[in-house]
Amino acid sequence: MEQWKSLLDCEAFAALQQCAQSPFDLTRPGNLTPERLLHFRCSGPEFDLHYGCQRLTGEVLDLLQALADECQLVQQFRQMRRGTVMNRIHGWPSEERQVLHTACRDLFTEVPACAPATKLAQKELAKLRTFLDEVESGAVCNRKGESFVNLIHVGIGGSDLGPRSIYEALRAYRKKGRQVFFISNVDPDDAAAVLDGLDLSRTLVSVVSKSGTTLETLSNEILVRQALRQAGLDPARHCLAVTGESSPLDNPERYLRSFYMYDSIGGRFSSTSVVGTVMLGFALGYGQVLEFLEGAARMDAAAEGENIRANMPLLLALVGIWNHNFLAMPTLAVLPYSQALHRFAAHLQQCDMESNGKSVQRNGQELGFQSGPVVWGEPGTNGQHAFYQLLHQGTEQVAIEFIGFKENQRGRDMEIHGTRSQQKLVANLLAQSLALAIGKDDENPNKRFAGNRPNSLVMGERLTARSMGALLALYEAKIVFQGFCWNVNSFDQEGVQLGKVLANRILSAMQGEGEEGGLENAFLGAVGIE
Amino acid sequence: MEQWKSLLDCEAFAALQQCAQSPFDLTRPGNLTPERLLHFRCSGPEFDLHYGCQRLTGEVLDLLQALADECQLVQQFRQMRRGTVMNRIHGWPSEERQVLHTACRDLFTEVPACAPATKLAQKELAKLRTFLDEVESGAVCNRKGESFVNLIHVGIGGSDLGPRSIYEALRAYRKKGRQVFFISNVDPDDAAAVLDGLDLSRTLVSVVSKSGTTLETLSNEILVRQALRQAGLDPARHCLAVTGESSPLDNPERYLRSFYMYDSIGGRFSSTSVVGTVMLGFALGYGQVLEFLEGAARMDAAAEGENIRANMPLLLALVGIWNHNFLAMPTLAVLPYSQALHRFAAHLQQCDMESNGKSVQRNGQELGFQSGPVVWGEPGTNGQHAFYQLLHQGTEQVAIEFIGFKENQRGRDMEIHGTRSQQKLVANLLAQSLALAIGKDDENPNKRFAGNRPNSLVMGERLTARSMGALLALYEAKIVFQGFCWNVNSFDQEGVQLGKVLANRILSAMQGEGEEGGLENAFLGAVGIE
Repeated sequence: MEQWKSLLDCEAFAALQQCAQSPFDLTRPGNLTPERLLHFRCSGPEFDLHYGCQRLTGEVLDLLQALADECQLVQQFRQMRRGTVMNRIHGWPSEERQVLHTACRDLFTEVPACAPATKLAQKELAKLRTFLDEVESGAVCNRKGESFVNLIHVGIGGSDLGPRSIYEALRAYRKKGRQVFFISNVDPDDAAAVLDGLDLSRTLVSVVSKSGTTLETLSNEILVRQALRQAGLDPARHCLAVTGESSPLDNPERYLRSFYMYDSIGGRFSSTSVVGTVMLGFALGYGQVLEFLEGAARMDAAAEGENIRANMPLLLALVGIWNHNFLAMPTLAVLPYSQALHRFAAHLQQCDMESNGKSVQRNGQELGFQSGPVVWGEPGTNGQHAFYQLLHQGTEQVAIEFIGFKENQRGRDMEIHGTRSQQKLVANLLAQSLALAIGKDDENPNKRFAGNRPNSLVMGERLTARSMGALLALYEAKIVFQGFCWNVNSFDQEGVQLGKVLANRILSAMQGEGEEGGLENAFLGAVGIE
Repeated sequence: MEQWKSLLDCEAFAALQQCAQSPFDLTRPGNLTPERLLHFRCSGPEFDLHYGCQRLTGEVLDLLQALADECQLVQQFRQMRRGTVMNRIHGWPSEERQVLHTACRDLFTEVPACAPATKLAQKELAKLRTFLDEVESGAVCNRKGESFVNLIHVGIGGSDLGPRSIYEALRAYRKKGRQVFFISNVDPDDAAAVLDGLDLSRTLVSVVSKSGTTLETLSNEILVRQALRQAGLDPARHCLAVTGESSPLDNPERYLRSFYMYDSIGGRFSSTSVVGTVMLGFALGYGQVLEFLEGAARMDAAAEGENIRANMPLLLALVGIWNHNFLAMPTLAVLPYSQALHRFAAHLQQCDMESNGKSVQRNGQELGFQSGPVVWGEPGTNGQHAFYQLLHQGTEQVAIEFIGFKENQRGRDMEIHGTRSQQKLVANLLAQSLALAIGKDDENPNKRFAGNRPNSLVMGERLTARSMGALLALYEAKIVFQGFCWNVNSFDQEGVQLGKVLANRILSAMQGEGEEGGLENAFLGAVGIE
């Protein structure tokens, strides 16, 4: 068993701490220069990363490179892609699984990194292509022979946030008439809000749960099946299962089709598996699915470079560690200047915080340093009229990653006062990046901007299926690299278990089977539920 | 001029710091008892606040009471409601305005706290009532004589996030056939996504901007007017203005009606003004608007009590200060167990962070302590399958406010395995609150839960227009109390100015008028925009 180093074990750690005592001052005249903006830039598939507005120097970059080398971050990433069991805690019972979300999209080279996993993915894609053709041709249709135009995607967490954010990002490119809806919350109002007024007769329902036992998803599936029957429809003609092979959902009598996901793909990393592609294929068509997967595959390949200055996900990861562990910023705001990405931060919040919100190293020892940050964000320019006040003048220091595109998705735009809306959007994006970095002095203390608010900019041409795939893979790889660097297991989620146990106890108490004098009964009494 | 104390000036400050050295241990057997859960509860209008899972004792509560008294928090709140100029920085040029959002809903007592402001609000409500009657009767209709069924609300920031989150919260109660859409972002894809496929002939457009000069809103208005004209419609027959009296939008030739807002109401506090009520009245009817306002008014009145144990907004504020300033938690997660509240955290993020993300006291001095936290959140149970891992087992400490309801909004629910979905939702809510507090030991270090994650629970019967009004006012008052305690001016937003200036410079550079060798031109070059 290989023992990996954490950042604390690295020689570069102390030197980085030393540098963090007086980080690069972006507000000092002559420091943030035009040359710096041009030079601190890393090109990758579909995007450039601009990091001139970070508080770091070439010396810090060299030390981060040393950190990456000592922790063998790229080597671990390569091992992960090739099928090494990375989901484990050494010396303790743990999931002991491979981590192969990258295999789902490794379709564009002659020799995939992990051929058996890619073969499984290809099999599901072939099934999906056939299914989509049949929906298109009308071979798959409702009892009256009408085509399906809607799809309800029922899932939660990893089976919901990724697909939802990607659908929102790409809905501008939907096939004519096609719409996707999402139900996730066990709150019955969530399902009701979707079902009310929808023409169920022309609706497919995709039930997404790897284990086939997720409480919320099964409850919502039952609500939806009831609604289908009430509308005089046969659920077996409308429902798809996206699940593990031979899970309780894998049942051809109850589902039109089953699409399989595998244990080597964690929910929060499953967007490029059938969890995302069934929905996306229905909405956009199979060709766009391949574009999406190819964008992701290109980014995965780029993540294997050893040079942090040329490896965008690795650089993004290490700049994040610089801000979080050395400059002590507890949160990361991801701020896309694209309304279509309005749910992307919510997906990253899940993918990042569930992966790296850990307190134990992969050898079972306590960390002794901070692991994953709180991740949050909303689109600009909206955020500028909301929480940016705190980013500029608050006492909390927030690390920021901006995302932007030169062109918009849809044709509609117009020139007002000499510029188009898209130009105004980009101008605001660049302006915020600079303003946060350089600040501004003023006689009036209330009009002072301290500056030195570090931020990066991930900039692309246009948000398309391909660039969305690349963006997703960029962040997945970033999160994986950071987990390696903190030496945590980014692929389990033991933290969700305790709540499940207590929820079952409270449900028992609600049914009159609670422990006399127990906390559960007391809490129910306190909130007035008998 | 009155000089207010900040928490640092208070005698209670040092004693609270002392208590924070060894805060109440929720994990210790016998500490979190059934009695504590019953006793640590504060009742207010429409909601109870349960705070037994906070790391505090009666002694800490006494000290927080002393802090509230020394800072004269309730007295300041009373002055605010009665029209004192609270939006100011003493000794420096500042906005010098009253703060009278509370007057908009102070309609249910014989003697309102600030009669002139309430009179203005009543005048607008009377106009709204007439207008809604005319829409209902068909006196206001499109050129063909058809009724209006859609409303597009065009605004940004304070003119968007509050109304949007309230609409989402209450859309279950819409009048039959009525729908509201929102356009906010200067990203032209935002407007395009709303306009594509909408029947504009039966659509009202409400343009919301106090100054009548907000860049994003005016750009989007032009896009929408163009779409109306392209559909052969007369914009003046479809557009409403919600704006300051005699702003550029206050023009009867271009707008069907104007509804007025006033300088004494900041954007982020404007949801109970015409900014929210025009939209809400169209969607739900005038009767529901009154319910909404009355819920808020009851909470405002309750916020005037001196006893923190009986004043819910004040208690919520001070518990927040305990967690933020004394237990050093940099962020606050607001987690509603109600899918309908899925945008409420985004509104609070704005209202809280724009109000209290400040570094200067109301006397112009630096703070010397932390002001407003980063606020974020998503609905449960969704979040349980996403970022809760970090809440339970991460290294970042997050203060949490849960929101829940005993009953759901819509009729649709069903029993599965002996309980309804709503029961499962509430069981999960209570379980998370307890699990975060008490934690769990385990031999396997990866299965350990440290516990002592402090959280409160705001619990109501059902999410209605009335309880939504109360919830909104609860948080508005909480934010105001915290701002008073930090001695910041919660009512200005100087932090948004620098970005505006730089955005205009970059727009000039895009038009070829940039400064040779300037940062703006360099940045445009670096991202590849010539």
